[in-house]
Amino acid sequence: MRLIPREERFFDLFVEDAANVLGAARLLEAMLKNYDAIERRAGELRDAEHRGDEISHDIGHRLEHTFITPFDREDIHALISGLDDVLDLIEEIADTFVLYRIEAPTPTAIQQASIVVNQCQLIHEALTHLRGFQGLDRYWIEIHRLENEGDQVVRGAIASLFENGADPLQVIKWKEVYALLESAVDKCEDVANTIERIVVKHA
Amino acid sequence: MRLIPREERFFDLFVEDAANVLGAARLLEAMLKNYDAIERRAGELRDAEHRGDEISHDIGHRLEHTFITPFDREDIHALISGLDDVLDLIEEIADTFVLYRIEAPTPTAIQQASIVVNQCQLIHEALTHLRGFQGLDRYWIEIHRLENEGDQVVRGAIASLFENGADPLQVIKWKEVYALLESAVDKCEDVANTIERIVVKHA
Amino acid sequence: MRLIPREERFFDLFVEDAANVLGAARLLEAMLKNYDAIERRAGELRDAEHRGDEISHDIGHRLEHTFITPFDREDIHALISGLDDVLDLIEEIADTFVLYRIEAPTPTAIQQASIVVNQCQLIHEALTHLRGFQGLDRYWIEIHRLENEGDQVVRGAIASLFENGADPLQVIKWKEVYALLESAVDKCEDVANTIERIVVKHA
Repeated sequence: MRLIPREERFFDLFVEDAANVLGAARLLEAMLKNYDAIERRAGELRDAEHRGDEISHDIGHRLEHTFITPFDREDIHALISGLDDVLDLIEEIADTFVLYRIEAPTPTAIQQASIVVNQCQLIHEALTHLRGFQGLDRYWIEIHRLENEGDQVVRGAIASLFENGADPLQVIKWKEVYALLESAVDKCEDVANTIERIVVKHA
Repeated sequence: MRLIPREERFFDLFVEDAANVLGAARLLEAMLKNYDAIERRAGELRDAEHRGDEISHDIGHRLEHTFITPFDREDIHALISGLDDVLDLIEEIADTFVLYRIEAPTPTAIQQASIVVNQCQLIHEALTHLRGFQGLDRYWIEIHRLENEGDQVVRGAIASLFENGADPLQVIKWKEVYALLESAVDKCEDVANTIERIVVKHA
Repeated sequence: MRLIPREERFFDLFVEDAANVLGAARLLEAMLKNYDAIERRAGELRDAEHRGDEISHDIGHRLEHTFITPFDREDIHALISGLDDVLDLIEEIADTFVLYRIEAPTPTAIQQASIVVNQCQLIHEALTHLRGFQGLDRYWIEIHRLENEGDQVVRGAIASLFENGADPLQVIKWKEVYALLESAVDKCEDVANTIERIVVKHA
C-alpha cells in the first residue's frame, strides 16, 4: 500500500474549487435562459461564492502548513485567485441583472454565458487530469478558441448598441453587462494560462 | 539607554502615511457634507496626495538603503502602495464631483465617504499599535464589517438609480461616483488584509 | 573579434518591440487625423498587435532558455508586458472608434494620441541607449511631463462633456475613449518607470 503524501490533497481541492465555479457558471446560464425568480437565483450564486471562499481559504491554510507542494507556491496562488475571480464575476453578473432591473437578457448575453460554462467545464476537466502533467494541450486550444468566439460575439453586440436611435439607458446597461461577461471569459483564459504554465514547468 | 535601530523609523512613517490618508478622507467627507467651495477643497486633496507621494518616496528610499527591516520588503511595498491607492481614489472622487458638475451629493455618497473615514481611522490606529504585532484582530473585524455595510449601501443606491424614469446623465454620473467610493472602501479592506498578513507572519 | 553573448540579443528585441508599439501609435494618430478608411486602419492595428505578440513570445522563449541575462527576469517581464499593454490599448482605442460609430474625433482625442506617439518615441530612444545603463534621465523627465500634459488635456475635455445640455450618448462615447487614451498615456509612464528601475539597478 502506497502512502499518499498529503500534498496530493491539493489536486483534489483544485478540482473541487473548479467544480464549484463550473456549478456557478451553469446557474448563471440557467438564470439567463429561463429568466424567472432572478433574485433567488442571484442569491444562490452568492452562496456559491461563499463556498468558493471556503475552498480557497482551505487551500491557503494547507499551503501555509505544507512544506513540500507539487507546484510553486505562487502558481497555486495564481490558480486559486484566478478561479476566485471567475466566480466573483459570475456572481456580479447575476447581481447586475437584478440591480439594473433588466427586463430580459439578449441572445448575446446568453451566448457569452454559455461560453463561460464551456470554458469552466474544460478547466474542470484539465484539473482532473493535472496529476499526469501532460496531454492537456487540447484544453488550452479549445479555451482560447472560445475566448476568440466570445470576442466576436461581443464586438457585434456592441456595434449594434450604437446603431441609429440608440437608447442611452440601454447602452449603459448592456455595455456594462457585456463587459462583465467578457471579463469572465478573459479570466477563464488566464486560468488556463496558469495551468499551462504549471504543466510546462513539470514537463 | 537603548539604541533605537533605524528600522524602527518605518513604524513611524507608516503611521504618518496613514494619518495623511485619514486627513484626506476627512476632507472628502467635509466636502460632501458642506458642499461649498468644492474646487478649493478638491485642490486641498491634491495637496494631500502630493504629501502622500513624498512619504511613500521617503519610505521607498529608506527601504533601498536599509538591510534589516522589521518586515518583508514586499509587505512594506504592498502596505505603502495600498495606502497610496486609497489616497488616489479619494482625490479622484473629489475631482469627479467638480468635473461632472454634480449639483449636490446624495445621502448614499455621504454615507460611503463616512465609511471610508471610519476605515482609515481604524487603519491608522492599527498601525499605531503595530510594534507589538498582536491584539489587532478587532481592527480587521470592524474594517470588514464596514466594507459589508458599504456594499449594502451602494447596492440599494444602484437599484434606485435604475428605477422607472431614470435620467441617463444622472445614471452615468452616480454609477461612476458610487463605483469610485466603493473602490476606496475595498482598497481600505485590502490595506487591512496586508497589515493582518504582516501581523500573522510575526505572531 | 569579440564574441557577442547571446544575452545581448535581448537589447535588440526590446528595441524591436518598442519600434512596433511606436509604429502602432503613429497609425492611431494618423487614423484620427485623417479619419478615413477607419475599419482598414483598425485592421492594420490588429496586425501590429499580432506582431507584438510574436516579439513578446520570442523574448519569453529566449528568457526560458537563457541562464544569464543582462537584467532580472522579472524586470524583463514587466518591460515586455508593459509594452504589450500599451499596444493592446492602442488597438482597443482604434476599435472603439469603429464600434461606437464615432463620426469624427475631437481635438482632445487627437492631442492625446499625439502624446502617446511622443511617449512611445522616447521609450524607443531610451531602449536604443539602454546598453550603457546611463544618461537616460531626460527621457523619464519628458515622459512624465507628457503624462501631466495629458492629464490636463483630458480634465478639460471631461469638464466640457458635462456642460449644460450634455447628450448622454456623447458622454458615454467620449468618457470611454478619453479614459482609454489616458490609460495608454499612463501605461507609457509605467514602462518608463520600469526602464528607470532597470537602469538604477545597474548604475
